[in-house]
Amino acid sequence: MKTYKYPSKNSWVEILRRPYFENTSLEKNVEVILKEVKERGDEAVRDFTERFDKVSINEFLVEAALINKAEKEIDQSLKEAIALAKKNIETFHKAQYIEVPKTTTSKGVSCWQKLVAIEKVGLYVPGGTAPLLSTVLMLAVPAIVAGCKEIILCSPPDKEGKIDPAILYTAKLCGIEKIYSIGGAQAIGAMAYGTASVPKVYKIFGPGNQYVTMAKQLVSKEGTAIDMPAGPSEVLAIADDTSDPVFVAADLLAQAEHGVDSQAVLVACTENILNQVMEELPRQLEKLPRKEIATEALKNSLAILVKDMEEAIAISNEYAPEHLIIGTDNAEQYLDQIINAGSVFVGHYATEPSGDYASGTNHTLPTNGFAKAFSGVSLDSFIKKITFQYISAEGIQNIGPAIEKMAAAEKLDAHKNAVTVRLRKLRVTGY
Amino acid sequence: MKTYKYPSKNSWVEILRRPYFENTSLEKNVEVILKEVKERGDEAVRDFTERFDKVSINEFLVEAALINKAEKEIDQSLKEAIALAKKNIETFHKAQYIEVPKTTTSKGVSCWQKLVAIEKVGLYVPGGTAPLLSTVLMLAVPAIVAGCKEIILCSPPDKEGKIDPAILYTAKLCGIEKIYSIGGAQAIGAMAYGTASVPKVYKIFGPGNQYVTMAKQLVSKEGTAIDMPAGPSEVLAIADDTSDPVFVAADLLAQAEHGVDSQAVLVACTENILNQVMEELPRQLEKLPRKEIATEALKNSLAILVKDMEEAIAISNEYAPEHLIIGTDNAEQYLDQIINAGSVFVGHYATEPSGDYASGTNHTLPTNGFAKAFSGVSLDSFIKKITFQYISAEGIQNIGPAIEKMAAAEKLDAHKNAVTVRLRKLRVTGY
Repeated sequence: MKTYKYPSKNSWVEILRRPYFENTSLEKNVEVILKEVKERGDEAVRDFTERFDKVSINEFLVEAALINKAEKEIDQSLKEAIALAKKNIETFHKAQYIEVPKTTTSKGVSCWQKLVAIEKVGLYVPGGTAPLLSTVLMLAVPAIVAGCKEIILCSPPDKEGKIDPAILYTAKLCGIEKIYSIGGAQAIGAMAYGTASVPKVYKIFGPGNQYVTMAKQLVSKEGTAIDMPAGPSEVLAIADDTSDPVFVAADLLAQAEHGVDSQAVLVACTENILNQVMEELPRQLEKLPRKEIATEALKNSLAILVKDMEEAIAISNEYAPEHLIIGTDNAEQYLDQIINAGSVFVGHYATEPSGDYASGTNHTLPTNGFAKAFSGVSLDSFIKKITFQYISAEGIQNIGPAIEKMAAAEKLDAHKNAVTVRLRKLRVTGY
Repeated sequence: MKTYKYPSKNSWVEILRRPYFENTSLEKNVEVILKEVKERGDEAVRDFTERFDKVSINEFLVEAALINKAEKEIDQSLKEAIALAKKNIETFHKAQYIEVPKTTTSKGVSCWQKLVAIEKVGLYVPGGTAPLLSTVLMLAVPAIVAGCKEIILCSPPDKEGKIDPAILYTAKLCGIEKIYSIGGAQAIGAMAYGTASVPKVYKIFGPGNQYVTMAKQLVSKEGTAIDMPAGPSEVLAIADDTSDPVFVAADLLAQAEHGVDSQAVLVACTENILNQVMEELPRQLEKLPRKEIATEALKNSLAILVKDMEEAIAISNEYAPEHLIIGTDNAEQYLDQIINAGSVFVGHYATEPSGDYASGTNHTLPTNGFAKAFSGVSLDSFIKKITFQYISAEGIQNIGPAIEKMAAAEKLDAHKNAVTVRLRKLRVTGY
């Protein structure tokens, strides 16, 4: 970790700059994949699956029999863990279903918002060495709570053409039936444009490698909505002398094991805790199966010594971390100062994996400083808030003259006229 | 208008396709402008202002004296109209400030969301022949209600280097002090990257010509958030025999006068009302100052005869209009069937200009079918919902074992360990 002691405020932006990973050919490569999928549909998806996933797949939709069979392959204790996580995620996302009550702005003019689920959504769940069943929960549960009518899920097939049973089981448990063995940019293209086998969706969610991320960005330019722009995962942990260095080190490593491009930032309020965490890190690192990845990630990581909690929060606001952990005794009294963060973990026992899996909050969060302007995935991500207005004859008489005046100032006479014809009729009919 | 009588459902997508306006050189031109502004800052902005706005400007920030003077140049009755509109917009956007209450998901685990304003936002208000003071209200009022700390506004200068007093007056009334005489793609670049005179913002709002729209799209790829993708304005009006053809024609024309690329869609439930509206249109069109624009827009517009209200709503859901007007007696009983629309106007007196100016709803809305996945601008657009979780010693004991199980299934041992070290300490200390 690069260590900075009491850096001056005007150096923060430079110190906190995210590491940059060059990749110029990526956009062109992904453009080609998307273009092919758009033009040749399933045939192109089949070709790319052969090329990238090394498997030939005829029918992308996973058979119901296979999904049902998955249930028998999952350990009972894992099923119970998933059930607890699902319940908590449901509880917290259901609590977010709040409609703005009808509001009377002028007499006879009422305005309201209605929450309406996005009709068709696509969820992407990455493949790899382990099944990301938590990603299934974090996307499927809010989609179901929102009431999306068509929810499809794409995940890359392994070399036998299969998706891990844990993903199939969790998806089915959430109520998702259409699961497709398609991965990478071709999956994003299939969901954005639709093919003979994959229905077109209006919004695409989920993490992925750089191909997936770029494909989401490119289809969003063409009008398919996406959850948010994505970058490598990151954490900022604030610690003081009340913090447990073992906990803090464990939290930093939980972040670092994600990938070599992950970033873990320690903001220490005393030299004492800084040193303790630094001594603890190698001890825990040594025992990790993903030691090499974590070691590489720590090279891009930072340890910053600041003078107090206020400065710690200020530096965190400048960094705008995806995850912010405040594992101190008095964490709660600083929460009002937080203005930029994806998700905040308060107190010694609120470790970041709680939010990754089971506490109920969503783990799909803004990285790369996007927390300055973006929220994480929530119920909001799966709904639209349609505004409505009802205006009575009295209402248009109350606000009509103001509208006429403003429309005239904007030289939009037809706008003005749409009010004038109504006011005239009311005068004529002697309302 | 192109007229379709009882089109079959499988022809809807084709009929409802938005007109396409080719422009291949646009992206490259805008890229050049943005790159220059990024590299040369104010100097580049000055150059582009000379080239596009035909005026040489030294100081972009409008002087306070000039803003104060604007107040004297605005007609009292217009001031009163603006005040009424502002009050209604404030009322409706304040009603949207609803926080999710703290939720206990498992015992000892509490999760909540906090609404936090985006710290720095930039508002763009187009120039042209008339001052778009309503755009100022629709962006500035929610930004202030949200509590954004730094709100800046850019608007193009006229040939004397000035911004219309109505814009200055309205901005100041809303509480905005930093107004810059900069327009076009160079304004978007200045706000996205920051220059010596213009502060960098995290999110950019507002309508504009194709240069502005493209610039917003391009800076959003680099991480500056934008309100939404934009296209030409549009309305879909549903009418039946209870509708007033004069009102319906006026509403269609209010849309058509926006620009030659605007689209007005009439969905008529009877042949009778279809014919009446068609007869009324030329009568009103004749008298409009913006007759030529409206005439051109009507060429891209549609009149569709359907068999009943259910079919009318279904076709509207397929089109996903920015504005949906249901000017019929029984409008309210169909509202639950609406799933894709930006803003809905209910009843004979709810004309679309009400929402454009003064009813209280926002007029920045998703066009081009984006209403399938996007909401219009609302309070949400100016805030982030940061999630928080507090977990007690009891809480981690309740959910910790489930997290360990799931992290192990995902082969993320450092994630598991962050829980394990906490549970171990609790065992050791005999909690």
